[in-house]
Amino acid sequence: MGRIKEMNFSLRKRRAAAAAKSAGVDGMLVTHLPDVRYLCGFTGSNAALVLAGGRAVLFTDGLYTGQAKAEAVGTRVVIAKKPAVVAACEWTAAAGVRRCGFDAANTTVAGLETMRKAVPAKMRRGMFVAVGPLVARMREVKDAEEIARMRKAARVGCELFEGMLTYLEAGLAEAEVAATLEYAARLAGAEGMSFDTIVASGVRSALPHGRATGAKLPKRGFVTLDFGVILDGYCSDMTRTVHMGKAMPGERDVYDSVLEAQEAAVAAVAPGVTAGEVDEAARSVLRRVKLDQYFSHSTGHGVGLEIHEGPRLAAKQKQVLEQGMVITIEPGVYMPGQFGLRIEDMVLVTARGGEVLTPSVKAWIEL
Amino acid sequence: MGRIKEMNFSLRKRRAAAAAKSAGVDGMLVTHLPDVRYLCGFTGSNAALVLAGGRAVLFTDGLYTGQAKAEAVGTRVVIAKKPAVVAACEWTAAAGVRRCGFDAANTTVAGLETMRKAVPAKMRRGMFVAVGPLVARMREVKDAEEIARMRKAARVGCELFEGMLTYLEAGLAEAEVAATLEYAARLAGAEGMSFDTIVASGVRSALPHGRATGAKLPKRGFVTLDFGVILDGYCSDMTRTVHMGKAMPGERDVYDSVLEAQEAAVAAVAPGVTAGEVDEAARSVLRRVKLDQYFSHSTGHGVGLEIHEGPRLAAKQKQVLEQGMVITIEPGVYMPGQFGLRIEDMVLVTARGGEVLTPSVKAWIEL
Repeated sequence: MGRIKEMNFSLRKRRAAAAAKSAGVDGMLVTHLPDVRYLCGFTGSNAALVLAGGRAVLFTDGLYTGQAKAEAVGTRVVIAKKPAVVAACEWTAAAGVRRCGFDAANTTVAGLETMRKAVPAKMRRGMFVAVGPLVARMREVKDAEEIARMRKAARVGCELFEGMLTYLEAGLAEAEVAATLEYAARLAGAEGMSFDTIVASGVRSALPHGRATGAKLPKRGFVTLDFGVILDGYCSDMTRTVHMGKAMPGERDVYDSVLEAQEAAVAAVAPGVTAGEVDEAARSVLRRVKLDQYFSHSTGHGVGLEIHEGPRLAAKQKQVLEQGMVITIEPGVYMPGQFGLRIEDMVLVTARGGEVLTPSVKAWIEL
Repeated sequence: MGRIKEMNFSLRKRRAAAAAKSAGVDGMLVTHLPDVRYLCGFTGSNAALVLAGGRAVLFTDGLYTGQAKAEAVGTRVVIAKKPAVVAACEWTAAAGVRRCGFDAANTTVAGLETMRKAVPAKMRRGMFVAVGPLVARMREVKDAEEIARMRKAARVGCELFEGMLTYLEAGLAEAEVAATLEYAARLAGAEGMSFDTIVASGVRSALPHGRATGAKLPKRGFVTLDFGVILDGYCSDMTRTVHMGKAMPGERDVYDSVLEAQEAAVAAVAPGVTAGEVDEAARSVLRRVKLDQYFSHSTGHGVGLEIHEGPRLAAKQKQVLEQGMVITIEPGVYMPGQFGLRIEDMVLVTARGGEVLTPSVKAWIEL
């Protein structure tokens, strides 16, 4: 995958500056690292980006001198001796910004205090203005370059799952399965996993958050695999549930209901539809067969540079889906003490509806 | 490793409550997840813990009903329909708390607003008081149970490094080395890695943050491995640098200087010594041989439930080391465009001085 073009960053920075202006501020301080990366390409762990007066300036420290200049092409880089955020605030005040926007959801109370102390006392009052997650909102709709990366990450996820089908067998420890999956992911080029790999087998499949443990895969029972890879910075996310041995009474019916719910939600995806409507598409299928009480979480979430982004696909959510969003659709049913299962795809919102980016088989699999 | 005893949690909660009282508040809201885990044992990802009037109440959601009751033994658990922090604040106000402490370094500006809105309007002013990182400070000094876990995590790290010595060879991709190390870590029982594994080889060894890439290990040159495992919740952290093939002019001298600096800093560790004095012990060795300009980061940091905790071992830091702290000692030298290296141990502060928890060989190794 090539580098994201300077042109893209330039456009993103202009759009963020315009959003800040609409929010009534004359500058914006960006410190959330995925936002910094999105706007200027810098991937280091110490960064503060200021947008003001048509300019963009990235503040970082001496450990990142070379990397910042190589990655943040088209953005001025300042190597600060002070903490990056302090240097950024001092510069912002000196540049004549009087109202500087910041993201309250990604700035700590202590961080805001540090920001305030960095500007002259007479400017403190009113200098920093919470403007909401402007960049996070922009990031919900992916551009062509991002979609290409996410397609690739999703494809690697599918290949990993398909490799697992010839490997899984009764007696393997869940942790061993996770280790093998993660090893294969690394060899396939993953920079890391999107989140702690979930391998939940047998009675543990009833745990929605079942991280891999020493438990052994059963001779008969479900195994849920929920995992994602990070490729070129972008996260994939998918879940498949397979069955070891022959189904026991009731298991197949529950599986088919979850699959029907999942497919109904995917079919409901389209620009203009609300997140709540997609959630309801899944939930209503499960309600019909009286399984909705066991579907104890939301239907999905946006995904991109972070594993959890907007929009949130939950009951009654009014946010409208837009073309270019990438979301997960992941209903599940969990019967405490018995078994559970979940099926999840990554879905791109296109003009023609939802396009599944993770096309691995979802039909019932008995291994 | 057995469970941490209810008695330990009980003691920790009492000490945190006493610290809150000393800070002038009559209740404390704890939302930083490692702090919640430390105080009551709960490891879920949605939690708010309130300490007030001698009581401790943990708020979480229905996905964690079973887990919260199993893990947070001795702490009352409330399964909230609302966001956990909202339920916690409502309870706190209703319980008669008038000044509730919170940690400004781990609470976002938006989070504080949510907290304020959850209490009756007439109580908002003055209800929430930033009391500093009280729990984080407690966590800097480990108890016997924690030290046992950290010893075990450190030992697994050493075994993994020793396994690498028979595996590393020229031509392997850095990412393949990381994959193999992480696979072995999983099989050894690690719940995950403490941070993104660093494998920095050849000219990339000059990057202090050199995450594993597709670059191949050279026939001649340094390979720096910096990694850690999470075992029973506790992080290990160690770095070793080995040399592929015969040293080139100058490399061996730099290695010996870094090792001397590292050992000098370890030898300086003792209760009552300041973090800055330990940093200076390493830095002065490198200054003597004019390499200090290439030692571009601090000497180390505390480690525990999180990979980066206090104290910070940097120039001029006045914080005094205490018995029971676990810190890293990790000086390095990075010559841009040429090579670099770092050597790191985890060190327990004991009454008799620093005890190295990661005793893997640090002498020059040519593979």
